[in-house]
Formats: sequence, C-alpha cells, structure tokens
Amino acid sequence: MGFEYLTNVPLAQARKEYLERLVSGGFGSKTETIPVFESCGRVTAKAVYAHICAPHYAASAMDGVAVSAKETFSATETTPVTLKPDQFLVLDTGDPIPEDKDAVIMVEDIVKNGDGSITIHAAAAPWQHIRQIGEDVCAGEMILPSHMTVSPAAIGAMIAGGVLEIEVIRKPVVGIIPTGDEIIPPCTDPKPGDILEFNGSIFSAMVRSWGAEAVVYPIVPDKFDQIKEMVAKAADECDMVILNAGSSAGREDFSARVIRELGEVLYHGIAIKPGKPAILGCRGEKVILGVPGYPVSGIIVIEQLLKPLIDHWLKAPAATDTYVNATLTRPVVSGLKYQEFVRVRMGCVGGRLMASPLSRGSGVVSSFMKADGILEVPQGLEGYEAGEEVSVRLLSPLEKLHNTLVIIGSHDPLLDELADMLHLEDSALYISSSHVGSMGGIMAIRRGEAHMAGCHLLDTADGSYNKAFIRKYFPKGGVKLVSCVGRQQGLMVAKGNPLQIRKFADIAKDGVRYVNRQKGSGTRILADYLCMRENVDTASVYGYDREELTHTSVAAQIASGSADVGMGIYSAAKLYDLDFIPICIEEYDLIVPDHAWDTPMVQALLHILKSDAFREKILSLGGYTVDNPGQIIPL
Amino acid sequence: MGFEYLTNVPLAQARKEYLERLVSGGFGSKTETIPVFESCGRVTAKAVYAHICAPHYAASAMDGVAVSAKETFSATETTPVTLKPDQFLVLDTGDPIPEDKDAVIMVEDIVKNGDGSITIHAAAAPWQHIRQIGEDVCAGEMILPSHMTVSPAAIGAMIAGGVLEIEVIRKPVVGIIPTGDEIIPPCTDPKPGDILEFNGSIFSAMVRSWGAEAVVYPIVPDKFDQIKEMVAKAADECDMVILNAGSSAGREDFSARVIRELGEVLYHGIAIKPGKPAILGCRGEKVILGVPGYPVSGIIVIEQLLKPLIDHWLKAPAATDTYVNATLTRPVVSGLKYQEFVRVRMGCVGGRLMASPLSRGSGVVSSFMKADGILEVPQGLEGYEAGEEVSVRLLSPLEKLHNTLVIIGSHDPLLDELADMLHLEDSALYISSSHVGSMGGIMAIRRGEAHMAGCHLLDTADGSYNKAFIRKYFPKGGVKLVSCVGRQQGLMVAKGNPLQIRKFADIAKDGVRYVNRQKGSGTRILADYLCMRENVDTASVYGYDREELTHTSVAAQIASGSADVGMGIYSAAKLYDLDFIPICIEEYDLIVPDHAWDTPMVQALLHILKSDAFREKILSLGGYTVDNPGQIIPL
Repeated sequence: MGFEYLTNVPLAQARKEYLERLVSGGFGSKTETIPVFESCGRVTAKAVYAHICAPHYAASAMDGVAVSAKETFSATETTPVTLKPDQFLVLDTGDPIPEDKDAVIMVEDIVKNGDGSITIHAAAAPWQHIRQIGEDVCAGEMILPSHMTVSPAAIGAMIAGGVLEIEVIRKPVVGIIPTGDEIIPPCTDPKPGDILEFNGSIFSAMVRSWGAEAVVYPIVPDKFDQIKEMVAKAADECDMVILNAGSSAGREDFSARVIRELGEVLYHGIAIKPGKPAILGCRGEKVILGVPGYPVSGIIVIEQLLKPLIDHWLKAPAATDTYVNATLTRPVVSGLKYQEFVRVRMGCVGGRLMASPLSRGSGVVSSFMKADGILEVPQGLEGYEAGEEVSVRLLSPLEKLHNTLVIIGSHDPLLDELADMLHLEDSALYISSSHVGSMGGIMAIRRGEAHMAGCHLLDTADGSYNKAFIRKYFPKGGVKLVSCVGRQQGLMVAKGNPLQIRKFADIAKDGVRYVNRQKGSGTRILADYLCMRENVDTASVYGYDREELTHTSVAAQIASGSADVGMGIYSAAKLYDLDFIPICIEEYDLIVPDHAWDTPMVQALLHILKSDAFREKILSLGGYTVDNPGQIIPL
Repeated sequence: MGFEYLTNVPLAQARKEYLERLVSGGFGSKTETIPVFESCGRVTAKAVYAHICAPHYAASAMDGVAVSAKETFSATETTPVTLKPDQFLVLDTGDPIPEDKDAVIMVEDIVKNGDGSITIHAAAAPWQHIRQIGEDVCAGEMILPSHMTVSPAAIGAMIAGGVLEIEVIRKPVVGIIPTGDEIIPPCTDPKPGDILEFNGSIFSAMVRSWGAEAVVYPIVPDKFDQIKEMVAKAADECDMVILNAGSSAGREDFSARVIRELGEVLYHGIAIKPGKPAILGCRGEKVILGVPGYPVSGIIVIEQLLKPLIDHWLKAPAATDTYVNATLTRPVVSGLKYQEFVRVRMGCVGGRLMASPLSRGSGVVSSFMKADGILEVPQGLEGYEAGEEVSVRLLSPLEKLHNTLVIIGSHDPLLDELADMLHLEDSALYISSSHVGSMGGIMAIRRGEAHMAGCHLLDTADGSYNKAFIRKYFPKGGVKLVSCVGRQQGLMVAKGNPLQIRKFADIAKDGVRYVNRQKGSGTRILADYLCMRENVDTASVYGYDREELTHTSVAAQIASGSADVGMGIYSAAKLYDLDFIPICIEEYDLIVPDHAWDTPMVQALLHILKSDAFREKILSLGGYTVDNPGQIIPL
C-alpha cells in the first residue's frame, strides 16, 4: 500500500514531449491501397492525378444532331439550310461526336422533313453543345492533394479520371487490454465485488469515432507475467495499446513496471483530474498508454492523450472543439495542482446559457453520458464561483441546448417518461432533469436556471401543497403552478416486511436502519414533519442522516439490504418489488416561470401532460392519481 | 424524341407530399436488436431502462479499511482509537463492504501497529468513502429515452446497468440501380461513347454518410423489361431504390413507365436545377426515386429528396446546415422557373467571405468536389449580381475557408504542386486556385477577391513581364510582385508533328486546326502579340475562337486529335506526350496584395517557394527555369 506518483507534469507539456518521443522512435502514419469506391472519408496518402480525361471523348451535351458547323453558317430565320442525311448524325446526350463533325444542334431547333433531311434556321457555332475532352478532369491533372479527406464527389472525379485505387492513410489499430482480478465480462447477474468490464466498449467506441480501429483483448488477471505477455502481444499486433486499470495506487499495480520492462515510461502521473495516474509509455514506435480503471478518468486520459496521437497519425485536421460562454449555477472548487475537467449539464434559460456541474465521481459513467460540456479548470486556479461566466467545451450541439427543457427540482420517475414522450413527439426537443429536491427547484427557478421545477411541498399549517411556498418565494408573481399528479407516499420495506414496520414512528425502533432523502427535498420535509407530529426524535433514528438523492436510490438501498426502511413513492417500491406502507397522497406539481411559458419545449410538454397517452402511462406505473394534469392552479 | 415533363412542382411541396404519400403507404423506420457494445452512433428504438444497479453492491471508493462507524465515534487527535484485526477489513478501491461495516477509512489516515491492530485519530462518518448501490445507475431507471443517439459513455452506462442488447432503429437499405447501354464498369481504357459508372459509388458514399446502407446493383441496359425486373427485385430487397439515369428526355426513357407499372409516380419533374427530371415514385412503403444520369443533377436530387426520407427513418435530428453570408464574385443568372443550386468556391480575403460560382455543367462532377458551398437561388428570382451579399449553405467547415489561400489568375500545374506541398507542410492550410487568366487575376486582386494571382503578361513595348501591368493596374501600389518561375512557352502538336508546324505563323496554314486559350489569359495575349508580329490574320486561323481554360485542356484536345496545334507550356505537352516547338521563355510571377502578405497562408507559401524541395519539384516537371522564387521583384 502507498505509492508515490513520479511526476505531476502539466498536460500540454506531457502531450508535446510524448509525441516527440514517439516520433523519434518511428511513430507515424502508415498507408494502404484501397479501391476508390471504398475511400469515402479516408485521407489521401499522396496526391492523386487523373489517368484519363473526363470526358475522354468529345461528347454531345444534348439530345440532337451532330453537324459540321461550317455547313450551317448561312442558316438564318429567313434563309434556312437543309442538311441531307449524310450531313448530320442523330445522337443522344453523351454520344461521341464523329471526327468530321464539330457542333451539335438541339432536337428542339431542327425541323424533320419527310425525305429524311432536316432543316435548320440558325447557324451552329463550332463546338456548341459539345462537352470537350477533359471538361471535367484532364489526364495528368491533380485531382486531390496529399492528406485530403475523400468526399463522395471526389470518388466520382477519381473514377471519371480513371483512378480505381488510391493510397490512403491506414487507420491506426488501437489494442485495449482490460486487467484486474475483479473485472468480469458484461453480464446481468454480477456477484458483490465483481466489476463489469465496460471500459473496453467505451474506449473502442471513442477511438472508432475518431477514425481508428479497435481491438479489445481478453481480460487479464492481476498477474505481472500475464499482463506483460498480453501487452507485448498487443504492441506487436497494434499501433497503439491502452493498458486499462492498474495505473493507480492499488496493491496490484503492475502497469508502470510492465511498460518499463517492455519499453519505456516517459511520464507516470499527469497534472490532470480526473486521470492523474496516467502512464505515458512506448515500445519503439508503438504507443503504450496506461489508463486508470475508473471510466471517467479513462475517458479523459484517452481524449486528452491518445486522441492527439490518432489525429497526428490520420493527417486529417481534427474537428475543432467548440467553446461557449455559460453561467455556472454552482461553485466549482478545484485543486491548484491539477488541470481539472468538470462535466457540466447545460441549458438555455431566458436567453442565458447555464452550466451545472455534474457528479465529479470518477466512477460515475452516467455523468459523462449526461454531460453537455466540459468545464476545463486550468492548473493553478482554485475554481469558479456560482454565477460566474465560464468558457465551456461543448459535447452537445449548441442547437440541442437551445431545444432542451431544463427541469430542476424534485425527482419523480415520471419526468423520465415525460422526456421520452416529448422526444418521441418531436425529435428536436429534449428534457434535461436534475434532482435537487423541491426547495432546490424553487431556488433554481428564482435564479433563472430552469424552465420548470417539480415540487411537492407540504404546508404544515393547512395541509395544502406548494401554493404557500410559491406565494412565499415568488411574492411578486412571475411563475405559474401547473397541476401534474397526486403521488402515494409511504414507507418502503423489504418484501414480507421482516421488521414489522406498521406506522411511521416505527422507523425509530431498535435495530431498524433508516435511509433518508437529502435536505430540501419534499420527501425529507414530509419525513421531518411526520417525526415532529409523531414525536420521533430524529437523533434516535439510525441512518436518519444517510441521504440519497432519488426515490429509486432509496429503494435500491432497501432492496440490497443495506437499509431496512425509507420514505418514498409507491412507484419506486414497485420497481424494486418492496413492500409499501402508505402514509399520504401528496400533490406533485410543476412550477413554470412566465418567461419560459411560451417556449416550444414548455408548450409541447403541457400538450403531453393533457394527453390521454400521459394519463395511461402514469396510471400504468401505479401509485399515482391523475386529476387535471397540465392545468394552471390558481394561486 | 421530344418529351414533356409532367410537372414543375416546387421542391418544398414535392418533399412534403412525397413523405406523406410514403407514410400513408406504411413507410417508416424498422428496428433491430443489437449488442450494446456495437451500438455507438445508433438510435434507440425505445427507452432503455437499467436492469441492475451500478454499483450493484456497496463498494469501497478508496484503498483503506472498512469499519463500523460507531466503533470510531470517540476517536480524536488526542484520544485515538485502536481497532483489533476483527474490527476492520483491509480493502482496495472497488472491494465490497461487508454487511457489518458501514464506513471506509483511507489508508493514509490509519497507523498500523505491530500486533496487527490499527490506530485512528478521527471518527469515521457512516457511509464515508463508500460508493452506495446505484450511485451511478439505479435498476429500473431510464438510461436513455427513445430515439436518442448512443454515445460511448452511454454504452458504458448501459453495460453497467446490466443492459447487454438494445433495440435500435435499423439502418435503411438503399438500392442503387445504374442503367444505360453506354454505361460500363469503371476502367482505365474506355472507348469513345463509353461512360464510366461512378454515380453508384458517389450515391452510396453519400447515403452511407447519412447513416443508411447502400447496395449497388449491376448495370442494366436500356431494356424496359430488364429495368422493370431489376427495380422490382431492388424494391423487394431494399427500403429505398434509386433508379439512376433514364429519367431525362432521351430516347431510352423508361424510368417513369417502369415505376408506374410497378407502383405509382407522385411527380415527374421538380422545379429545381439541376435535377428537374427527378421522378418521385413508390411501391407501397418502398421509395423508388428516379434520378437523372448527370452526376451533379443526381447529387442534388438525392440530397434534396432522398436525404429527408433517410432522416425521417433514422429519427435522429439531422445535422443542420450552416448558412453564411458571402460576397458573390461573379453574377449568377437563374431561370425564374426553377430553384437553382449553384456550386461555389469560397475563401476569406481581407476579412470578407467571398463566393465564386463554379461550372454549372451537370456533368462536371469535379465542380462538386471543389465546391465549398451551395448558393440556393429561390424559384422566381432571376439571380444575383456580382458584389451582392448572398447566403450560402456551407459544404466546407468555415474554419477551412479561413485557412485557405485563394489564388485566382493564370493557370499553371505548379499551383497544384504548391497546394500539395503547402498542405503536407501544415495540414490546417489549403489552397484554392481558380483559372481565369492573368488579367482575370489582376482584376480579382483589385476587387479584393484573392490572396494571390499567377501572372505572365508580356509588355510588348520592352519585352519585360508583369511589372508594367502592375504599375498600370495598381497605380497607388498596395501589392507586391513575387518571383516564381520562368516558363517555356511554345506550340504543342501531335507526336511526330504530322502537319510539319515549324514556326508560329504555321498555325494559319490550310488544314491546321488551332485551339486557343481564353481572352485575358497570358498565353492568349502572347498568341495575339505573335499574330500581330508575324502578320497572321487571326480570322484565317481555324479554331482561333475555340477557347480552353488551361494548358492541360489545350494539350488534351491535341492529344485526342480534336485539334492540331495550340499554344502552351512545355510541362503540359510533356504530360500528354506531345511534340513541342519552343517559342519563348516567359516570367510567371505571383501578385500578392499587401493586406494578405502577413497571413499564415501566404507566409507558408513563400517559405515553400524558397525551399530546395520546390526547386527540385519544379525542375523535375521540365520546361521551367528557377531563379529566385519567393523574392520580391522591385517595381
């Protein structure tokens, strides 16, 4: 145990020196010859010259007759010229012009006579309506310079120029080696301690999207010799090798030693976060990159260190990153020692582009899936404050962000169903929903960060929901409250209710492990209220301070046996096949600020809320009542 | 002969009604189930839900020891707690937390004692450093809504959630049927009248780039029954069929009849140019699109009429077109009857984006290869004037246009070699060169349309080149003249010089067919001057008004036998293995306006001009002298 990273080298320096070292070892593009018709999107290895002219013969550009122009020179409207059959030749577009003819007259401009002759009323200019040899491409002409990406039209021009094969940059082959005793192939019933191998699938999809080929090798256990053997094999068979996991400080860290024995390690430890334990290695001209096991760290390392090498190999200009300015919704604290890559969710609310930091856990791959952008915090900067204008590298198209309905607030699985229904209805519209609890949603609306907030806040004075909070937090108005659903709240317990939980106060019983929701969530406020009403001392409830962010994650803890009881909605309990002790039905409504009301996204969502399809969907989930979804609630 | 198009329906209307007709016949996406690891870039057919939680067990987030938090509550810096070996468990990141433990203490925060116990100096909070079940994904949670494009990270999230297969939109299969008696498979030695079949390769590359699959069927001769049989077969085997050629007014026009007999024709004739003879047909839910034979017309028809159907099928938001404003360099005249698609070359000169119309010939596929954008002239508009600000749909990235050196002027093959060397030197830089002759180049520089112009203009007063013209056309300065090469000009004649051309005046001999360059080109000015000096009456020279735009195309006409003699440079004659009668050596220089001098493109080009590599390249072409390329010539 215990490990010292050898280096903390800045990313730009590492990237530059790594490429230089590799190039000095012979690293660089290789080429291959392929049929032209398969070359779309590939990059020419050298300039391509036409072998033949296109057209390769003088061709008629029209349907008509070929003539000798000088035999028509006297023709006018008043002095027509008649040509005998041996003086003209009927031809179609594309037909060759005979040696003794030098002009084409369009079919519309001739009069056919009964004896087979034709009469014309205008002189033909020499070479009119003739596609001259080489009009498109001349033999010997350069069709494409070196290192150009082949387009569909270029394929046509090459074939027209008699070029049937071309030399292109071969796609680099990236070998990916997953390692670790705990890693198992993907399955649906892993045992505790098993970790599903999905990094190989992520990394191969990434490198393929950058133009490389990918080979995923079998999982290698944490045995030095076996890892070394597999890396040597991959380095022989591929141009670049990703050695996954084992680059961190765990007991089974062999990666750096393996690479050192097979070749050399330029740096072990880069000043980036996540991704700092990366190993920049090589064996001659072959890249060997040690990549951390956590998926998010791995994605960053491969994007920041391997992609530049693939770009260098492919000789095609890399698609440039788009940066936009956005307002940060929450502070980002970053270490001075590292350049940090923070995944953010984005949306455009009231004309302002907003960026909300996502989970920074390196293991949370879904955060990368949800990310619309990356906030790059430079090394030496402590971070940014909420409300600060920051520059964000886009992962989603800007247009998608402008068409995304941003919902921040209380969690309910029906929001995911709404997202699905909305996108099915109009594939240009998206929903991005973040779960920060009902109060968090109100605050997000007040700060102008969301188009909509899910909310279920009990007014303990009169038992009503939401209205009092709207009046309190939006004293000047400016928002509408839209009816959504009634939800059955209750206690979720394991199937069969082994601890005999009957009423709310039972959560304080000895030996009962509670799991709570985060402060500010409507469910937490309800639980706090019930504790007060039932005289339950929250300090006596084991796990009352254990907080989960969603109904489903509370249910998941109970289903797994790591907690015994938690408060949540019926649909979550049903999902995990838990027993459910109903407590009350609450109103789950949506808050919409006036400035967002007329956006296409909000209007489309209201339309769905009022639909029969939504009603059916909701009732099929169970635990909901549906009254007047989509109606504005008078405040 | 003779044919009336049935319709001239506006594009937008045709597109809308075509889709409606198809959908009413059952047209729409089909789905298939594929392994998740192969699903990158594919579109989900329905929402994807997690089968298991990720993590699926409570896992250590650190290397350290698992403890029961309550056994550590009294630990402080001054009152450390010692835990016996049975009170803790050493574990690595990712290891499962045992049932009786609920916190992890990092390896850095423990002191190992000799007896196997450990000492800690701070209390552990319950659930600290533990990745709770479902932290990443909860079982039952929606991972992806319907109709979303799968990203690499989404693949990871799905596998982590126990999803190993998903239902995605199947790629539509587009069958492409080339027809025509004159069409032959690609080869390097076609006979006159043969037309190489390259449309199939262009069209398949296009539809593949839009996410469809392509099948190219064998070439079918112009026989009604054979075409009908092949279309029926393709409609059975594919989702969409492109019936290529035969949709125009030629004698062998069977397409519309074939489609009508197999299904129905919605429209024959769309108000677009090129592409008006398109046939919008179907057989039940199957698309049958009749596409004109000229490649440029075909490209436009497929892009405007088939791509929307593929987009509809794929359910993914189509990449939106980018439009930019640009200054038109030449007038565009368009018919009122059609919406016209004009291919333009673009560049950014002096901060202004310029668009130059390319050849409008439907057969000139290289024009599509060279196009950076499409100027869409609406139906009912007569066109645009030179200098007008127009909106152009981009085909090239805007960034490429900003890095493109625009050379307009006299043609020389060395410009292509320079383009190759420049792009090899710096893959971000490009050259776009247009051949309009030396005077055309001077005018382009005056109008601010080019960064550079190739020029070889003889001052007949003193035999010098270029300088007098610069002084005349740029009286206030503002440009530099840069030395490039000396070029051998002469008469090109067929191998063996069958017509015994010895001196310039021989071009007027009886039976000699001359081919000229366009007015304003340096070579034309030289020829005009020589005619004057040698007392040759240009009216007596057959073909003196037959104009080609480049040295190579003049050489190509002579090599093919369609002309006997033409004026041009040695390298063009050599390329076509022609005999060459030297006339004079001229100075081919480059004009660079001051505002372009410091651009990276011009500086990179000057660097190449001065290089040994350029000198070697030029001398290897033959017919050039190299003195001081890249040096500024004093005016």
